[in-house]
Amino acid sequence: MNLDSPPEIPFPTYDAMKLPSFFEEDLQAVDAALQRLLPPEATPPASIHKAMRYSVFAGGKRVRPILCLESARIFADDTSPAMYPGCAIEFIHTYSLIHDDLPALDNDDLRRGKPTCHKQFGEAAAILAGDALLTLAFETIGNAPVGADRRVKMLTEIATSAGTINGMVGGQVADIEAEGKRVGPEMLEYIHRSKTAALIRAAITAGALCAGAPDDDVTRLRRFGETIGWAFQVTDDILDVEESSAALGKTAGKDIAQQKATYPAVFGLERSHQIARELSEKAIAELNGYGSKAARLREIAEFLVYRRA
Amino acid sequence: MNLDSPPEIPFPTYDAMKLPSFFEEDLQAVDAALQRLLPPEATPPASIHKAMRYSVFAGGKRVRPILCLESARIFADDTSPAMYPGCAIEFIHTYSLIHDDLPALDNDDLRRGKPTCHKQFGEAAAILAGDALLTLAFETIGNAPVGADRRVKMLTEIATSAGTINGMVGGQVADIEAEGKRVGPEMLEYIHRSKTAALIRAAITAGALCAGAPDDDVTRLRRFGETIGWAFQVTDDILDVEESSAALGKTAGKDIAQQKATYPAVFGLERSHQIARELSEKAIAELNGYGSKAARLREIAEFLVYRRA
Repeated sequence: MNLDSPPEIPFPTYDAMKLPSFFEEDLQAVDAALQRLLPPEATPPASIHKAMRYSVFAGGKRVRPILCLESARIFADDTSPAMYPGCAIEFIHTYSLIHDDLPALDNDDLRRGKPTCHKQFGEAAAILAGDALLTLAFETIGNAPVGADRRVKMLTEIATSAGTINGMVGGQVADIEAEGKRVGPEMLEYIHRSKTAALIRAAITAGALCAGAPDDDVTRLRRFGETIGWAFQVTDDILDVEESSAALGKTAGKDIAQQKATYPAVFGLERSHQIARELSEKAIAELNGYGSKAARLREIAEFLVYRRA
Repeated sequence: MNLDSPPEIPFPTYDAMKLPSFFEEDLQAVDAALQRLLPPEATPPASIHKAMRYSVFAGGKRVRPILCLESARIFADDTSPAMYPGCAIEFIHTYSLIHDDLPALDNDDLRRGKPTCHKQFGEAAAILAGDALLTLAFETIGNAPVGADRRVKMLTEIATSAGTINGMVGGQVADIEAEGKRVGPEMLEYIHRSKTAALIRAAITAGALCAGAPDDDVTRLRRFGETIGWAFQVTDDILDVEESSAALGKTAGKDIAQQKATYPAVFGLERSHQIARELSEKAIAELNGYGSKAARLREIAEFLVYRRA
């Protein structure tokens, strides 16, 4: 399908979903935790801490830490320990954006409506700030106020999801290699599941692990995470086509310009909307047994798929 | 002191120290473990695994894993679990070299006599291969065949030593910021202790932690590691001035060319040799109570300071 011209087929539209009511509260709690867990800007060497903080506080939606918290909530009244894996994953997410934006990779000047890290601080600082955030992520997991057994399980879950085999870096590599090539549904699925879904799955699984969920529940939450993460990336692809740069806070239409492997490019917009909806429903069905304890997690899952930015 | 012209003062010379007799045996065991712990080259996405393996197997001396193993040997007959933290630290060391060599940082074409990672595979691949090695390092710590308590202690030790506050990335940042500036002994010490000594200290401490050493011994080994790591970097600075590129397998004289903050530049060669010797003696004195159990560790410590390449 050629997307250089606007699609002429009709496709379903959804009303802009409102953020869940508790989202703002969670987001503020996450931001406060990120403030505590990042080295103060004045701590030497100040320049790197400044760059790390710039990118972490550039206005992210904190989807991953919030999913981690709300997954923990199913199994524990006190969700505060889950801030540690949640923030660790936000650090990993941020490092991946910083490195992804570099001239040698996506060469992007704009991220969340602000200059990207290397535009603001230079390439050397951006490379090192990314490295430092990845390192801090694992230090943060080591400091989580739960038993060593749980910390090690979170470590393994998060490290594999960020790695090369079915993990984030593997997905990025496959994504770059797919640029400008004709990509089939199988490779498209591999890229989306690795590049984005793996880390979202890790956030949800780590929340359950941190709260001491039994193995069966961890497995169930992992399946939920995998599927909702996949739906999230399909939605991202759709928004890149449908929304303006202003709404997204990043350069829209870049996927087409870079000939990226995306769902709209392979399946068309209509079918992509349908896939996102189907994945979302399949994911949410995993939460059926948890009743009202999973109400918030369910609400975010829906928001992630029906959002407009 | 101006080092643009050859120094005219006499300075002590040491005979080229031979490698310790057991070094080759340890090195082969480390290489075999690295082979097992790295994803096979054929595993998709193959290109990243190829780049990771290229840099890990580019001919390093494996100083850090061998120090880790020999530190563990003081406290345990079976040193094989210490391969995990040892190889993890080798992955971290390798990632730091890959990113350090990038055009935006040191812009080096040659490393251990071979093209650097970005010269061989391109900048994007080199950035991602470094990221992947750092991630794999933490996954490897999580898989160490010792209790979760020990794994978490190793995680914290290694993550902080690789981070920004008195850790490797912090040292790299300070090093870059010091280029072309007049640097005093205090900043010089900060850079060396952070950039190099911290990770060597972590290798030695992690070996002790992995083998279940009591807290007092861990503290002693950490002091040993800190001091011998510092001596190691002073020796590196000296070698950069005294030895040829052929002997070093990298571009010699780069420190002077880049106006790096080095011991020879601040103290002169004679005093730098003396500092390396003093630090080495101070470090080795920490091992006095361990008798023959620390014989190998003592031997490597001497080699690291009196080597000629």
